[in-house]
Amino acid sequence: MTIRVALLGFGTVGQGVYEILQNKQKQLTDLIGEDVEICGLLVQNKLKERAISDYVFITDNFEDIINQNPDVIFEAINGEEPSHSYLKEALDKNIHVVTANKVMFATYGQELLEKAGKYTSIGYEATTASGTPVIGTLMNLLQVNQITKVEAILNGTSNYILTAMQEDGKPFSEALQEAQDKGYAEADPTNDIEGYDAFYKLMIVSQLLYNRQPLWSEVPLQGISHISEKDITKAKQQGEKFRHVATLELVNDSIQANVQPISLPSSHGLYAIDGVDNAIDVTGDLVGSVTLRGPGAGKLSTASAMVEDFVRIFQASPVKQLS
Amino acid sequence: MTIRVALLGFGTVGQGVYEILQNKQKQLTDLIGEDVEICGLLVQNKLKERAISDYVFITDNFEDIINQNPDVIFEAINGEEPSHSYLKEALDKNIHVVTANKVMFATYGQELLEKAGKYTSIGYEATTASGTPVIGTLMNLLQVNQITKVEAILNGTSNYILTAMQEDGKPFSEALQEAQDKGYAEADPTNDIEGYDAFYKLMIVSQLLYNRQPLWSEVPLQGISHISEKDITKAKQQGEKFRHVATLELVNDSIQANVQPISLPSSHGLYAIDGVDNAIDVTGDLVGSVTLRGPGAGKLSTASAMVEDFVRIFQASPVKQLS
Repeated sequence: MTIRVALLGFGTVGQGVYEILQNKQKQLTDLIGEDVEICGLLVQNKLKERAISDYVFITDNFEDIINQNPDVIFEAINGEEPSHSYLKEALDKNIHVVTANKVMFATYGQELLEKAGKYTSIGYEATTASGTPVIGTLMNLLQVNQITKVEAILNGTSNYILTAMQEDGKPFSEALQEAQDKGYAEADPTNDIEGYDAFYKLMIVSQLLYNRQPLWSEVPLQGISHISEKDITKAKQQGEKFRHVATLELVNDSIQANVQPISLPSSHGLYAIDGVDNAIDVTGDLVGSVTLRGPGAGKLSTASAMVEDFVRIFQASPVKQLS
Repeated sequence: MTIRVALLGFGTVGQGVYEILQNKQKQLTDLIGEDVEICGLLVQNKLKERAISDYVFITDNFEDIINQNPDVIFEAINGEEPSHSYLKEALDKNIHVVTANKVMFATYGQELLEKAGKYTSIGYEATTASGTPVIGTLMNLLQVNQITKVEAILNGTSNYILTAMQEDGKPFSEALQEAQDKGYAEADPTNDIEGYDAFYKLMIVSQLLYNRQPLWSEVPLQGISHISEKDITKAKQQGEKFRHVATLELVNDSIQANVQPISLPSSHGLYAIDGVDNAIDVTGDLVGSVTLRGPGAGKLSTASAMVEDFVRIFQASPVKQLS
């Protein structure tokens, strides 16, 4: 048998997935016990030049992808739609899904998981903290533990800016410009610096841990653009650092969530997380506090999360049972 | 069906396992789909008073345990023997094994894994960094990644001592005494401060990642007892910290390993790991550098690793197929 893979989107992450599937063919076959073949690629503009094998079928029509009979779809598009509709249709046809789309998954994750049911899988490690295996750790490795608290740095751009302000004494505007010059921040940096990006990831973690999310409108969301050089200096004098922290806490069965800049003492697990890294600190009732730190973005790192998900899906439910 | 569990050893960790199995019965049944029953406990002295239910069968004879027909054995004894012989016999009888015994597993892990084969499982998360899910991450979550380098703090006692020397300016002997007073260091601290404990854990990680270990006699092993106040002061002046680092690196298909104190710059992922915590920093060819930090010891934390292993074993191979 051959596992048929379709890719939706060929931006940075989609290209990373393509590269890994090409370059690690033998290893993937060793891990899964089946060959892996890319049977289709969905793009917006079919005519654009791409560094891609002539044998790969390229289309701008999702129905063409479905007609290729893929076993699994990698989705690396931005925004809620049409991704959500595509994945719904894929799951209806018992096609496994691996997604990197955090906005879509924060919004429709629960619906898609219910649709997937028992025999179709959705991998979403790549939605949160790129290749850092946050989702897998919480889903597979800390199942017996009741996670009572999560504190995390989930946006590399805002952490980079806070680090530059702290270490080089730059004002916010200069630190933002530096992040933009280095390609860490978008031309419109709102999503990152106002905390929306971290918020979506936090909601995905909430859904995973507690099977529900707090009411979005009731989650305090504060960005970092109001942090002044004076704030930074004061934190420094106290031996502290500002970090943009996303918090989730279970209080009397109610989920308390917020995203805000906090001045952290050096004893805090997130104090040492500088630059574009992400980190998540979880407190389990048995294990205590465990911190994962790693890349928060990047072509191969995010694609790594997707391909790792893919391997686990097919190790758990061999393709033979599906077709 | 009921899953029958036997415990070998009722020291700190064994007691922790017993507590979790008692206190989380409903949750375990929800996760596994079966009830869980403790069918036997192996101890050295049957007559000793223990905080344990009257219904639990206690024996000092391993054959009595086997005769209870357990589905899984939790092993939390110290030293290579008789643990190794017990577990060999258990695996021969298709009994799953969960162990916290690092010295035994570093030595006999490969033999036991081969004996276990495809249908019997061995969980050994608890051998390395207590409840911090190092083994599970490397085994399940980073399978596609080629791990080219591992740098780790795997002994909480020596890290506590180095932290006390660095932060409070204490000489080694005083810091050691403090660790002993707090119960972090044994009366004979050799295993911890000379690096043997970290070495065993490193060998377990090597076996997992590369399916082999370097020749033990060729691994440079250096403890921390020779670190002087002068060394510490010098590191401090350079903005660095001494950490007892266990390293594994793949160089031209050869495994380079060593355990030694290193003065680390603040940019290093292990620089910020203070006190009794453990941490492991792994570099994957796709994901880049990922760091896990968490407890390196503790009753519930280590027992947590064992019970988490137990759950995964029975989720992957339901008991119905075994008996």
